[in-house]
Amino acid sequence: MTRASGARSGRRPGNSGTREAILDAARFRFSEVGFDKASIRSIATAASVDPALVHHYFGTKHQLFAAALQLPIDPQEILAGFAVVPVEGLGEHIIRTVVGIWDSPVGMPAVAAFRSMLASDDPTLARTFLLEVVLKEIRPRVDSPPGTGAQRAVLAASQLAGLLVTRKILRLEPIASMPIDQLAATIGPTLQRYFTGDLPLES
Amino acid sequence: MTRASGARSGRRPGNSGTREAILDAARFRFSEVGFDKASIRSIATAASVDPALVHHYFGTKHQLFAAALQLPIDPQEILAGFAVVPVEGLGEHIIRTVVGIWDSPVGMPAVAAFRSMLASDDPTLARTFLLEVVLKEIRPRVDSPPGTGAQRAVLAASQLAGLLVTRKILRLEPIASMPIDQLAATIGPTLQRYFTGDLPLES
Repeated sequence: MTRASGARSGRRPGNSGTREAILDAARFRFSEVGFDKASIRSIATAASVDPALVHHYFGTKHQLFAAALQLPIDPQEILAGFAVVPVEGLGEHIIRTVVGIWDSPVGMPAVAAFRSMLASDDPTLARTFLLEVVLKEIRPRVDSPPGTGAQRAVLAASQLAGLLVTRKILRLEPIASMPIDQLAATIGPTLQRYFTGDLPLES
Repeated sequence: MTRASGARSGRRPGNSGTREAILDAARFRFSEVGFDKASIRSIATAASVDPALVHHYFGTKHQLFAAALQLPIDPQEILAGFAVVPVEGLGEHIIRTVVGIWDSPVGMPAVAAFRSMLASDDPTLARTFLLEVVLKEIRPRVDSPPGTGAQRAVLAASQLAGLLVTRKILRLEPIASMPIDQLAATIGPTLQRYFTGDLPLES
C-alpha cells in the first residue's frame, strides 16, 4: 500500500493498490473536513504516499475528487463553461449542457455515480461535492440581492436533481424521451427564475 | 405459505408468511402488468391464497400497493385532498402538503421507501406507482390544452422528486432547513407554471 511497495511490485497490483489507498484516503478526508480543507498533503499522509504521487495519479484536487466519486468527467471542465455564459442565459444553458452529458456516452456512469450517492447511508461526500464544488461556482454569480446566492443555487440544484431522477433513473415518460429543446424551454425558465427572479429569500 | 397452512399454524409465523407471500406476488404483478391490470384475484392466485384474505390483510388495491412499496401512508388519502383544491392553487398546496408529510413522523419511512426505489436495479415498480397512482389523478386536471396533461404532471414530478432528494436525502443547506412557507413561495410557482402555464408542449 505504500509508495515503496507500489514501486517494487511491478505495474498492476502495486499501482492499483496505491491508487485505491489514495482514493480511500481522499473519500475519508473530503467527508471529514470538506473539499477546501482537505489538502493533497493530508490525503497523501493518510494513504502513506508522497503528495507528488497523488498528483501523478490523479492530477488536480478537483480531478481527485471526481475520481473518488467515480465520476467519468472532471466537473471543473463543465463548470468552466458555465462561467462564461451571461447570468441571464444560465438557466437554459445549464439544462442543455447537463442533459447533453447525461444523454451522452459518459452519461451512464455519471448517473450511476449519482445513484450510488443517493443510496449511500452517509450523504456527506455527495453534499461536500455539491456544495463545495458544483454550487460554489454558481453561488457568487447569482448573489443578488447579496446573501441570496446560496438559496438560489440550491433551489436550482433541487430542480436539476429531480430531472436526473425522473429522466435517467426512474425513466418516467414523457420526460424520459423529451427532446433537449423542449426541456430547455420548459425547465430552463425554472432555473432562471431561481437564479435571477424576484423570490422571497432571506438576504 | 398457503391459506391453509397460514390458518393452521397459529397467529405469528403463519400470518406473516402469508402476508409476505401476498406482498411478493403484488410486487411481481404490479411490475409485470401495471397497477390497473393487476387484479387482486391474480395477485391472490400467484400467492396461493383466497382473494378475500388479500382484502382482509391489506384493504384496497391502493393500500396493497402502498404496503408493497413499504409506504407508511395510503397515497389515496393525500391525493383525495388534492382533488378538492382549485387547479390555480395546486402548486402551492402540493408543496405544503408533501413537505408537511416528509417533515412529519411518517416522513422518515416515506423518504426511505423513495430512496430504496431509486437504489433498485429495476425501476418498474416505482414507475408504475408514480405513473398509475400518483400522477394519474393530476393528469386530467391539468390537461389544457388537451394532450398536455401527462407532460405537465411529470414536469411537476421532476421538481418534487428533486426537492425530496435535496431536502431529505442529501440534506443540502439551505434547502434542508428552509421553512415550508418559503418553499411554498419559491417552488410552489414552479409547479403551478408546469400545471397551468403557457409551455411549449406537444398536444
